Amino acid sequence: LEVCLARRVRDAGSGEDRLIARHFTPLATAPGAFALTDDAAVLEPPAGCDLVLKTDAIVGGVHFFDFDPPDMIGKKALRVNLSDLAAKAAKPLGFLLTLALPGWLDDAWLEAFARGLGADTVCFECPLLGGDTVRTPGPVAISIAVFGAVPHGRMLRRAGARSGDRLVVTGTIGDAALGVALRRDRAAAERWRLTGEQQTGLERRYLLPQPRNALAEALGDCATAAMDVSDGLAGDLAKLCRASGVSAEIDVGRVPLSEPARTALGSEPALIERVLTGGDDYEVLASIPPGRLEALRERAATSGIALTDIGVVVTGDEEPRLLDRGRRLVFAHSSFSHFDR
Amino acid sequence: LEVCLARRVRDAGSGEDRLIARHFTPLATAPGAFALTDDAAVLEPPAGCDLVLKTDAIVGGVHFFDFDPPDMIGKKALRVNLSDLAAKAAKPLGFLLTLALPGWLDDAWLEAFARGLGADTVCFECPLLGGDTVRTPGPVAISIAVFGAVPHGRMLRRAGARSGDRLVVTGTIGDAALGVALRRDRAAAERWRLTGEQQTGLERRYLLPQPRNALAEALGDCATAAMDVSDGLAGDLAKLCRASGVSAEIDVGRVPLSEPARTALGSEPALIERVLTGGDDYEVLASIPPGRLEALRERAATSGIALTDIGVVVTGDEEPRLLDRGRRLVFAHSSFSHFDR
Repeated sequence: LEVCLARRVRDAGSGEDRLIARHFTPLATAPGAFALTDDAAVLEPPAGCDLVLKTDAIVGGVHFFDFDPPDMIGKKALRVNLSDLAAKAAKPLGFLLTLALPGWLDDAWLEAFARGLGADTVCFECPLLGGDTVRTPGPVAISIAVFGAVPHGRMLRRAGARSGDRLVVTGTIGDAALGVALRRDRAAAERWRLTGEQQTGLERRYLLPQPRNALAEALGDCATAAMDVSDGLAGDLAKLCRASGVSAEIDVGRVPLSEPARTALGSEPALIERVLTGGDDYEVLASIPPGRLEALRERAATSGIALTDIGVVVTGDEEPRLLDRGRRLVFAHSSFSHFDR
Repeated sequence: LEVCLARRVRDAGSGEDRLIARHFTPLATAPGAFALTDDAAVLEPPAGCDLVLKTDAIVGGVHFFDFDPPDMIGKKALRVNLSDLAAKAAKPLGFLLTLALPGWLDDAWLEAFARGLGADTVCFECPLLGGDTVRTPGPVAISIAVFGAVPHGRMLRRAGARSGDRLVVTGTIGDAALGVALRRDRAAAERWRLTGEQQTGLERRYLLPQPRNALAEALGDCATAAMDVSDGLAGDLAKLCRASGVSAEIDVGRVPLSEPARTALGSEPALIERVLTGGDDYEVLASIPPGRLEALRERAATSGIALTDIGVVVTGDEEPRLLDRGRRLVFAHSSFSHFDR
């Protein structure tokens, strides 16, 4: 880490060193972070464990809106990374933070950002280990590298799904994609016949992912393959199948939808494409041997996480088939069409 | 890591997924990188070792010029991080890469960037483990998180320097700061009476740092404290002293200068401020108990790295004293003045 996250901020003048130290040092609770006073952090890997490494960046205007509440942006930046640890069966250990800050950004923004992020470091037991801040003439950009631990050799891979495995997803699918559509098109709420509460619910799912880290250990025990759904269920399923050398059949009618998503789909059935390809779900997709499905269900219930069986892994190397009442849905170039199978 | 570093690039359309896979997969030689085909990487920590973690970002227009050769930018992005591992006595294990790419950036740029970076992954035995690419309306920004290994409990700290320790630096100081000044002010070369070769030499030191990883193990055996000199020797020494609860006396006349830097200083003595505070040196500053100095010297000589004794650690909590022929140099707000001691 840079001293106080702020080595290069010198260029920007002012007491930003101290400012950043004040906001971020409280998040650096791990002994190996040295309270952000050294050039690097130390992590003592848990005995018998491998480290799982992941980096994911979010950029203003691309992955969030500049006017989003900064505390939510702080949470989202960490959560999109935590979501991958969950899907890889890894327990969070800590993270490094790179902040690219435009000139307009004030102390109040930074304070709120750090407050949101800090709450999640506690909630997910994932302390700040270090970081860097840089000035940018561009938008706010936040890059996080997160570290987790799995028992040696036990990281859940994309590869590993076997014919006959059931395919499950956590939570509900499509809410964030509908939420961001609502934020870009205010008239959509009326078209989709959503109440104010339903609209807020969908928008909130875009603003604040709910990574499923509470299920990570159970996934490690039960799944043959897993990944987080961040680019849309259809595309991410295709990736998992490709990595595993298999295909799949999904019953679209079983894909878990929230109540606001069902309302929207009722008004505009074509939204099914957005639901299945829109992304930003940050749920887990996993393949589970049938014999372990019940055990995983029980552990998901204990964790209060919805888990839905949506289909099956089959042999072959074709694209996974998304079956809607017997008809195959095909999406191409963000449009979709129905074909008879 | 993101699949092929390219999960989010989907938004940008085109076959950028494949493009990035082609350029970056060859750099991902570690087995735990899974050839960039999974969502995360695995790192099996060497037995008995701690991990040293560091992240440092560079931004176009701030830490490099947009028209710099992309292969040099790729090398610099990794080297500024490797430099910290060297100073912390850690052996490189691998790194994560986040690339924020503006729309104007073409395949040729990316290919050259990856080629330069790739050469250094071999040279420094530090493979790519994963990464993320994002679109940005701003300048190119590169954030790297690097991982190194040290024997358990042996990371070199800033804290640890003791009264009586000698202060040493590797290489030469001030070249990069003069180099960037030359690039911003073409008339300076004439004022400083530099030959074309001297000018190129200084500019190259800004373009391409030479991290001292070959000395990392020896530093771990000999030093009581160390850090890399990236923000200027004067300021970084003050940080090391503050962390160690000591002060220091530096003989400015002993600070190692390259031949072009000596020429420039001969023409314009006031440049000493820029030399000592300008930064971007990426040399190592370390405190060495006198009894171990000779051993370190020998190992530096074996590695072909210049090592110079520039002063001594003393008790006290004042700012370190920079003594130029008996007179104390004081720099404040990027100006400096002479005071009699």
